[in-house]
Amino acid sequence: MDARSLSASRRGLMHLHKVGTPPKQNLLREFTARVKETFFADDPLRPFKDQPRSRKLVLGIQAIFPIFEWGRSYNWKKFRGDLIAGLTIASLCIPQDIGYAKLAHLDPQFGLYSSFVPPLIYAFMGSSRDIAIGPVAVVSLLLGSMLSKEIDPYLKKAEYRRLAFTATFFAGITQAALGFLRLGFLIDFLSHAAIIGFMAGAAITIALQQLKGLLGIKNFTKETDIISVMHSVWGNVHHGWNWQTILIGVSFLSFLLVAKYIVKDIEKGINPSSVNQIYFSGEYLLKGLKIGIVAGLIALTEAVAIGRTFASMKDYQIDGNKEMVALGAMNVVGSMTSCYVATGSFSRSAVNFMSGCETAVSNVIMSCVVFLTLEFITPLFKYTPNAILAAIIISAVAGLIDIPAAILVWKIDKFDFVACLGAFLGVVFKSVEIGLLIAVTVSFAKILLQVTRPRTAILGKVPRSNVYRNILQYPEAVKVPGILIVRVDCAIYFSNSNYVKERILRWLMDEEERVKAACQPTIQFLIVEMSPVTDIDTSGIHALEELHRSLEKKNIELILTNPGPVVMDKLEVSRFANLIGEDKIFLTVADAVSSCSPKQADEV
Amino acid sequence: MDARSLSASRRGLMHLHKVGTPPKQNLLREFTARVKETFFADDPLRPFKDQPRSRKLVLGIQAIFPIFEWGRSYNWKKFRGDLIAGLTIASLCIPQDIGYAKLAHLDPQFGLYSSFVPPLIYAFMGSSRDIAIGPVAVVSLLLGSMLSKEIDPYLKKAEYRRLAFTATFFAGITQAALGFLRLGFLIDFLSHAAIIGFMAGAAITIALQQLKGLLGIKNFTKETDIISVMHSVWGNVHHGWNWQTILIGVSFLSFLLVAKYIVKDIEKGINPSSVNQIYFSGEYLLKGLKIGIVAGLIALTEAVAIGRTFASMKDYQIDGNKEMVALGAMNVVGSMTSCYVATGSFSRSAVNFMSGCETAVSNVIMSCVVFLTLEFITPLFKYTPNAILAAIIISAVAGLIDIPAAILVWKIDKFDFVACLGAFLGVVFKSVEIGLLIAVTVSFAKILLQVTRPRTAILGKVPRSNVYRNILQYPEAVKVPGILIVRVDCAIYFSNSNYVKERILRWLMDEEERVKAACQPTIQFLIVEMSPVTDIDTSGIHALEELHRSLEKKNIELILTNPGPVVMDKLEVSRFANLIGEDKIFLTVADAVSSCSPKQADEV
Repeated sequence: MDARSLSASRRGLMHLHKVGTPPKQNLLREFTARVKETFFADDPLRPFKDQPRSRKLVLGIQAIFPIFEWGRSYNWKKFRGDLIAGLTIASLCIPQDIGYAKLAHLDPQFGLYSSFVPPLIYAFMGSSRDIAIGPVAVVSLLLGSMLSKEIDPYLKKAEYRRLAFTATFFAGITQAALGFLRLGFLIDFLSHAAIIGFMAGAAITIALQQLKGLLGIKNFTKETDIISVMHSVWGNVHHGWNWQTILIGVSFLSFLLVAKYIVKDIEKGINPSSVNQIYFSGEYLLKGLKIGIVAGLIALTEAVAIGRTFASMKDYQIDGNKEMVALGAMNVVGSMTSCYVATGSFSRSAVNFMSGCETAVSNVIMSCVVFLTLEFITPLFKYTPNAILAAIIISAVAGLIDIPAAILVWKIDKFDFVACLGAFLGVVFKSVEIGLLIAVTVSFAKILLQVTRPRTAILGKVPRSNVYRNILQYPEAVKVPGILIVRVDCAIYFSNSNYVKERILRWLMDEEERVKAACQPTIQFLIVEMSPVTDIDTSGIHALEELHRSLEKKNIELILTNPGPVVMDKLEVSRFANLIGEDKIFLTVADAVSSCSPKQADEV
Repeated sequence: MDARSLSASRRGLMHLHKVGTPPKQNLLREFTARVKETFFADDPLRPFKDQPRSRKLVLGIQAIFPIFEWGRSYNWKKFRGDLIAGLTIASLCIPQDIGYAKLAHLDPQFGLYSSFVPPLIYAFMGSSRDIAIGPVAVVSLLLGSMLSKEIDPYLKKAEYRRLAFTATFFAGITQAALGFLRLGFLIDFLSHAAIIGFMAGAAITIALQQLKGLLGIKNFTKETDIISVMHSVWGNVHHGWNWQTILIGVSFLSFLLVAKYIVKDIEKGINPSSVNQIYFSGEYLLKGLKIGIVAGLIALTEAVAIGRTFASMKDYQIDGNKEMVALGAMNVVGSMTSCYVATGSFSRSAVNFMSGCETAVSNVIMSCVVFLTLEFITPLFKYTPNAILAAIIISAVAGLIDIPAAILVWKIDKFDFVACLGAFLGVVFKSVEIGLLIAVTVSFAKILLQVTRPRTAILGKVPRSNVYRNILQYPEAVKVPGILIVRVDCAIYFSNSNYVKERILRWLMDEEERVKAACQPTIQFLIVEMSPVTDIDTSGIHALEELHRSLEKKNIELILTNPGPVVMDKLEVSRFANLIGEDKIFLTVADAVSSCSPKQADEV
């Protein structure tokens, strides 16, 4: 008792700073702040604050149609850049569109339609300056693969097309709804690494599909996995031939293919209306909805990733939620004008950026070129050789295989690499949907692992300083005799509270064994450094109480250091702070250690 | 340049301690360590280390059958405690079993069977000393509600019973598999708060079901929600009567009910075999599997919670995974001897504990009493009045409604309270399964929110110290002019990397505005305090790179402090440490600030 009071008085002198308990917050205000941080993290109403009403109206229109904001400072110099970039991406997009439409099992003109209307809408509503809008390879493949599972694209052409428009409509609705409900953060759940793997897998699948055109195979499999495709290719190459002639045959075939044209005409004229073709009832409504949600989310992931990349290169901000509304609106309008799902294209956006685009006007230029093409020169494209189309598509998707990025992922985080590889193998060996499923599952597993098994560390004093750090990271750091200092590296929630408690007790047991073997003073204090513990819930408080009870039995004092404002508040409310004693909570580990030393000195 | 080199040289003098990069780990060893921490956190092989082979065998047997460990020190004094406790819980369990069997729509003897075999098995394999094994109210209700959706319990009695055994079998398999695969941590995903709500809801539902017995209603609804039940009760009370007579009628009915006996006989004799009654094929296999998994998990949650509570009261450790294997084995054997799902009972375990039980022998005593009951006196129970059974059950489940705990949850964590209330309302107004689903969903939503929207804080210097803390928690802490210090409070993963980056930039923007308005020196340094950032993945590194790029454009220097070992390693591997300069990473915020000051002084 004497030692205790002595230590308390000494502590009083040394320990100037108490751990702060934040001022009690109004429940409603706390809730509002939390909702704001979750859904309005980007503070979209910020510019509206303290503005007169007329200004607010202008700002509101500008918020929905950013073109009215940047359009005012638009000039000829910018237009020159946009014109060149627009013409460049137009020349790239026309053959790509024709090829991608085939991936989606649609007639070539639907690819062109999708490069006419959506870019125009995006130019008015979008906030990225560099993105090039139109159909993209991965979404076309995904859409083609999912739609053709429901309806045969060649036997029931009209129904297939209607289902495609239905899916596009719901893709747009999904995108706009996510943006409008400010749930844009949901797409963050697809990890970067998983996307790398998914894209590479999709690229290989798309390239494999081109073998049909490149080798002129008629009876090609409808499956997309590598085994079915290779089986198709092999089966056809073998067809009655022997090994010696394969080489000659393939070469000859390739040569022949140059002269083989698209059999079908591309329809002349711009987008016809397709409003009354969307299924708003019947069995296809639900199927279209399901496919639309998946395709819409993938399209969104791609567009947002592109938007963010180029925005950070030119240092401007993209409003993710607003962007989703723009993409959604563009696809909804698209679905009514015979377009299928359009989004930002990696390859064309990069070309757009490098050709010196300044604003979304380059999309308008591209759109105009596509319009002219549709009106006047589609018949010419009839003569585009299939083999050349295939070559264009292969070269476009080759850029999606990012091996250095995969290597970097392997180096940085092995678990990420599993997600990446899983998505890749899933797409290549099974199907696009399975690849996606693997990517999402692995991503979630990672999050769950993170919250169930937080890291903990034993701290030691860094010599010639007042700082306590992880002894595994700083081998020179030394443990303080008689005191065990453990840092918990995560919020303590129901998902990990038991683990944290048991892990701390295990550290203690190990340390007691070591101390006993080395004949050092026994452990009398357990300091839990709580700086990284930013939140705690009921289960966490329970775990702390159980820890305290176990320690009491062993005659070890529990001391906490530096709990954050939320944690401190909850320790007070639950009366745990009272239970262990308010004076057992310190601002720094150094303060806590110096409060222990006297007792240590007196008793040992 | 001059100012920079000057600051660098000064920094060299002051900055003694570099941030440690941990020694490179072998990939395999790192992976092994991670797996061990995830699945073998409790280190089950620890006692086997460095032991001779014969000793290992003994330890192995003791690990599977703990009775051989504690049995050796068993004595008469302990037996006296166990005998009294066992007799007490037996007297409680017999009427409860009969009532619970009715909740599960099974004949009364099946409740008694389930209190005979499972406790015996548990006594050999379980590690809790206080738990009382047998059927419990919530699991019986859940089982009854799920099974009767598949098969009508009164029209197809034999099939219903077979499905119950099938579900019990798979419940046992699920439990044992979770323990054996060391996946016990999965049950931690049901938060403590959600369980409070779920249990209270289940208790009310069970009590409502007793109205049938208490009021002697014949045509009672098969639904469990409060609206259907009240409708049943009301409909029956109304039945041709008017308001004035209800009071008299109910009173009279209650009186009459005391004289109303169980119509059915309770079968005499102990458990018959039911091995050949389990569905191992056919449509009921899958249904039994599904129901078994759900019931098994709920039973597990209850048993583990009880085990942990009493273990921490008497200060001994429960091995969660081993416990699951014991519970699973007991249910598998149970399903072959006409038992349905048994687990630890809250009410009986508490009585067991308070009657002074010492070991699991009290379960053996109870089991013996149940055996004698089954062999000799079941015919007597035929005369147990339904109304008294109902009263016993209501009083047993009343303890499950823990209002003070719910109030504490409300005080500590509002989000937890939503989970609690959601589970409660779901059970009461809809069904047990819906309540469960709500509890799991809200729990997961909380985890996702935690990882998508981590907290960040602005740090200031606590006066008369070298410590930097959250300025919201410590209002006396002051910002350092020209420097913005932000602490990120969570591992930076794909799920939050964009948010973290944008949040930091937003803090910066706010601060720049404030500084400008107050005519203070502009921000030249951004210090990101990374102590709580225990891990980072590829997306996180990307976000840091983008942050660095944005800051470069604004001519602001990015400085990191105290990244943990894993983060430091990844910063090195990804060459981000090189990008910002190794000398921009400091051990403490104080070090970092003092390195900034000279430049500040020279330029301002």
